[in-house]
Amino acid sequence: MKSKSSTIRLLYAASDSSADALYLSGVFVPDPFLAIITEKKSYAVVSQLEFARVARQSRFDEVMLLEAMRQKAAENLQMKCADVGPGELMIYFAQRFAVKKIEVPADFPAVFYAKLYEAGYRIQVVEGAFFPQRAKKDDSEARAIRQGNAASAAGIRAAEAVLRAARIEGNRILYQGRALTSERLRTLIDQACLEKGATASRSIVAGGRQACDPHEVGHGLLRPNQLIIIDVFPRVQKTGYHGDMTRTFLKGRASSAQRALVAAVQQAHRAALAQVKAGVKGATVHAAAEAVFQAGGYVTERRAAGFVGFIHSTGHGLGLDVHEAPRVSKGAGKLKAGNVITIEPGLYYPEIGGCRIEDVVRVSKEGYQKLSKMHYRWEIR
Amino acid sequence: MKSKSSTIRLLYAASDSSADALYLSGVFVPDPFLAIITEKKSYAVVSQLEFARVARQSRFDEVMLLEAMRQKAAENLQMKCADVGPGELMIYFAQRFAVKKIEVPADFPAVFYAKLYEAGYRIQVVEGAFFPQRAKKDDSEARAIRQGNAASAAGIRAAEAVLRAARIEGNRILYQGRALTSERLRTLIDQACLEKGATASRSIVAGGRQACDPHEVGHGLLRPNQLIIIDVFPRVQKTGYHGDMTRTFLKGRASSAQRALVAAVQQAHRAALAQVKAGVKGATVHAAAEAVFQAGGYVTERRAAGFVGFIHSTGHGLGLDVHEAPRVSKGAGKLKAGNVITIEPGLYYPEIGGCRIEDVVRVSKEGYQKLSKMHYRWEIR
Repeated sequence: MKSKSSTIRLLYAASDSSADALYLSGVFVPDPFLAIITEKKSYAVVSQLEFARVARQSRFDEVMLLEAMRQKAAENLQMKCADVGPGELMIYFAQRFAVKKIEVPADFPAVFYAKLYEAGYRIQVVEGAFFPQRAKKDDSEARAIRQGNAASAAGIRAAEAVLRAARIEGNRILYQGRALTSERLRTLIDQACLEKGATASRSIVAGGRQACDPHEVGHGLLRPNQLIIIDVFPRVQKTGYHGDMTRTFLKGRASSAQRALVAAVQQAHRAALAQVKAGVKGATVHAAAEAVFQAGGYVTERRAAGFVGFIHSTGHGLGLDVHEAPRVSKGAGKLKAGNVITIEPGLYYPEIGGCRIEDVVRVSKEGYQKLSKMHYRWEIR
Repeated sequence: MKSKSSTIRLLYAASDSSADALYLSGVFVPDPFLAIITEKKSYAVVSQLEFARVARQSRFDEVMLLEAMRQKAAENLQMKCADVGPGELMIYFAQRFAVKKIEVPADFPAVFYAKLYEAGYRIQVVEGAFFPQRAKKDDSEARAIRQGNAASAAGIRAAEAVLRAARIEGNRILYQGRALTSERLRTLIDQACLEKGATASRSIVAGGRQACDPHEVGHGLLRPNQLIIIDVFPRVQKTGYHGDMTRTFLKGRASSAQRALVAAVQQAHRAALAQVKAGVKGATVHAAAEAVFQAGGYVTERRAAGFVGFIHSTGHGLGLDVHEAPRVSKGAGKLKAGNVITIEPGLYYPEIGGCRIEDVVRVSKEGYQKLSKMHYRWEIR
């Protein structure tokens, strides 16, 4: 703490919700706290409520007690202790470390940026990743993501089992005597994730036209003979890493248009996967999926009611955040060994339905290693 | 869009995770998006992926398409479309509205604050609540919170049922033939919350010494004759509002020290509740709990291993966030009618165990209305 550091990096976030804070600390803290990274060490300033636990469980080199630090800051800045908030604490530490430059992440709270700026500090906002190494997953991270995907698969298998056990009566899907809804199927999926130690949130169970709004989670009765998209991205409770998997099912009989749509998505999924390799651009992977859809005559366009076709990117990085670097989309740069990405092409036409198929892979020099495991059968009679 | 507005307020957040963004929009969006509030209207700028859904379901007066706005901004700012990020979009809108002043919330991303500042805009960071009206809950919000607490209660009742059905064998609690762990009980609690349409995350099931770290979620075997704190704060999937409830149980036989500790917490809980009323300070409510502990000789202090006693505040506001305004702690100001707060005194001594009892109330002119319902029996033979 006595040492000088010409540059410090500051984080102010709750590690329950901020992936950067969790990556740095390795411990879940529900309320925002100050973390300081100097050229030599990392420090956390936490309240008495967290102190013993963070000191014991975290990766920080030093854990300091918030209440004591506020008192020191008050003495140093000659103000009342009650007036020392996180911004004042940051100024105190900047003085203590005789700092010349401060780096903060893009999502650093503006209120503290402004306070440091007014106190005369020049702050560099890191526009890209604050911890670029987050995009390169080591073996233990890959295992954690595999565990997340095992939970996703358990959820999707639970849904599949329900659809198999259900029977069709008119325009409804009956399960255990009651008409099946998106909400009920979501509950069963999320409960299956919990059995695997992962918490799912806003799992998508969307049928028919609803599935054509890719972020519509789905509500109300599920119908026979309609495509049902199921997208499950739970977080493993112990590690904070996510799974992310999508399958599309249909209970009843598919039309030829639905079969062609699903076949095109399956083909795009394989075509995109076939491109994945360290050194290949995310844009190239995306283009491979697009090419399949174009060849099949599946047009992406705006209609009065909304967009149709292949209306999202082929994939995204996955880790402590559900969406993180790198991108797998138009304009995306080269994939690197260790990147963990989703491959999830989809097609959406209200008159046919929506279909998305998603798996997770770790990029390697040779190609990729699959971190998710689940069959692709989709028609359930 | 043609109108001028001397002041605009900007938000850039995902409403899945930002309570302010959800409060404003009324719709769940998983990725950050730009929201603009002028003196007359509110606007959202969302991608084609969200456009139709947000236009249909949100509270915004106008929903704009991100892809189209980026193009307009590129023309206006004379730059390439690919270079138009959210910061450039904000500058474009500031120009379009001929804005003089911009207000942003405390947690507004520093990267965009810096961009607007560099573009010559003077930005006011709102230090307190960005939407102060969030602290005053109307009847429909109170119902949503009551629903959250019903889910909490369902989770805690599920845990209680397991502890009742379990039997003690030596130093273990056996349930369905297996030794009961924190993890297993948490899974059953969270599954019960899901049945009620609410997603629980990081529910606390901590026994013995573990419970004396108030934010330790608990892990490993639960032991007989130890106090077990169960704190469940799920989020209702449909509305985003939370429940928050804590009960403390013991399987086996309590010692006289444990009984005295629980009795003191129960008494502090009642004493704090008795103070709750519009116009009374949160500090007064907190002091009432403190006074009970002091009278009982329960000292709050720092020991070598950590802090013991009553080491947190008596409560906090509850709504779209688990922790929000107002505070119920030392120095806290007057409660207002419509505030929804938790009352959750607790005591923590590793040699006895931890105990916390938490309910949720809505403050009224006459006192309060309870929004949670669950008995206080705790010894389970």
